[in-house]
Amino acid sequence: MSDPTANAPVTIGILGGMGPQAGIDLVDKITAQTRAVKDQDHLPVILLSWPQVPDRTGWLADPSLPDPAPVIAEGLLTLERAGAGVAAMACNTAHTPAIFDRVRSQLESAGAGLRIFHLIEETVLGIARQLPEIRKVGILGTHGTLSSGLYHHVLDEHGFETFSPSDTNRLSNAIYSPNTGIKAFSNPVTETARQEVLSATRELIDRGAEAVILGCTELPLAVPEPEWNGIPLIDPASMLTRSLIRAVAPDRLG
Amino acid sequence: MSDPTANAPVTIGILGGMGPQAGIDLVDKITAQTRAVKDQDHLPVILLSWPQVPDRTGWLADPSLPDPAPVIAEGLLTLERAGAGVAAMACNTAHTPAIFDRVRSQLESAGAGLRIFHLIEETVLGIARQLPEIRKVGILGTHGTLSSGLYHHVLDEHGFETFSPSDTNRLSNAIYSPNTGIKAFSNPVTETARQEVLSATRELIDRGAEAVILGCTELPLAVPEPEWNGIPLIDPASMLTRSLIRAVAPDRLG
Repeated sequence: MSDPTANAPVTIGILGGMGPQAGIDLVDKITAQTRAVKDQDHLPVILLSWPQVPDRTGWLADPSLPDPAPVIAEGLLTLERAGAGVAAMACNTAHTPAIFDRVRSQLESAGAGLRIFHLIEETVLGIARQLPEIRKVGILGTHGTLSSGLYHHVLDEHGFETFSPSDTNRLSNAIYSPNTGIKAFSNPVTETARQEVLSATRELIDRGAEAVILGCTELPLAVPEPEWNGIPLIDPASMLTRSLIRAVAPDRLG
Repeated sequence: MSDPTANAPVTIGILGGMGPQAGIDLVDKITAQTRAVKDQDHLPVILLSWPQVPDRTGWLADPSLPDPAPVIAEGLLTLERAGAGVAAMACNTAHTPAIFDRVRSQLESAGAGLRIFHLIEETVLGIARQLPEIRKVGILGTHGTLSSGLYHHVLDEHGFETFSPSDTNRLSNAIYSPNTGIKAFSNPVTETARQEVLSATRELIDRGAEAVILGCTELPLAVPEPEWNGIPLIDPASMLTRSLIRAVAPDRLG
């Protein structure tokens, strides 16, 4: 049996489905940012889209609900068994320490060798590398991401000043509403959801943010622009994509 | 350990990477055509994007080149081991009997239980179901797909009259050219490639085609319109998507 990956880079595993469009979007970015003129120049990728992972924000608010951590750990182990050598998750809230730390310890217990790239750490490292002049960073995300201080904590460690919206419910509604939210209508996103995201962005810029992190994988679907009124909008998935390609095939980073 | 797929539909496996954008596009269509208001309503999907599968058209033209069949079979077995119960490939040329029949026999030898949905058969069944008045069908595709009679054979069996372009090299160039081709520039596609595809479409319509199959997974990236001058443009991936969703969760077909 020929081994298709004999001379190929290490396979990148993506745990998606949280939501499904965000996982697809991440694989799409890997393809778009890989320098290639024929199929065989591209990188091997496995996307495991498991929308059945219990809702992360829901569990953080009420730990009596189904726990996402063991399902996420099982998904990452499935990726490793299918051949992935590095992996990442297309979901900000899944990186909350209350979830992520238990995922990591379950992987260790299972003897996993998979190297996990941490969406939030790669984003903050990417800002420090690409935008060295910036010190004040705004953060948008689900109520779960914002109230857990997920980005704040990592940004603090790197010496950034941080801002988040005064009303996190309106932003969560833009993501979760069954009538207009991005999870229900991702392609295209509703104008209602987009305006809500832009309104929160404006608030952070007015308060002094020099860059704004779109800290929920759904948000860049609503606001794909790389900047807003001259202020960089940071898509964590793009930062993560560059870290993943750099790790497995630095010469193919487009 | 909780089993995330305990109450979930059968997992859909997609062997992609042929090219990468076509595999992503197929998973995207599955998400878009699934009726869902929250993540957990979506279907579990595994995309194995293996761009290292040797070029199918190249091998058909010169069987001394690396053989794609064993790599494709290994990819499908990997999908089954990772949990897929049904599977499909986002590549027309991989369904050529000279390749596909050997893949199928390798899966049988390996005792695979995976149900493979055949892109070409599902497309022709879809036309017969959705467009029952149509009898004359034009076919666009790579030189390999067209010269092997892949669609012609299945369409003939269902009583359709078939047409293909007089100059298959120009169309292959629109797909493969390293300077303007869709494999090298898929997002966005170059205007040169799009015009070449439209020119071949016009030729088939002028000769009497009542529908035109975009019989290479790259072609709908260049011409995403559902019809051209009133003539339906058939995207095989859309037909396949509907068959896959119908197989695993008919109540969620959007």
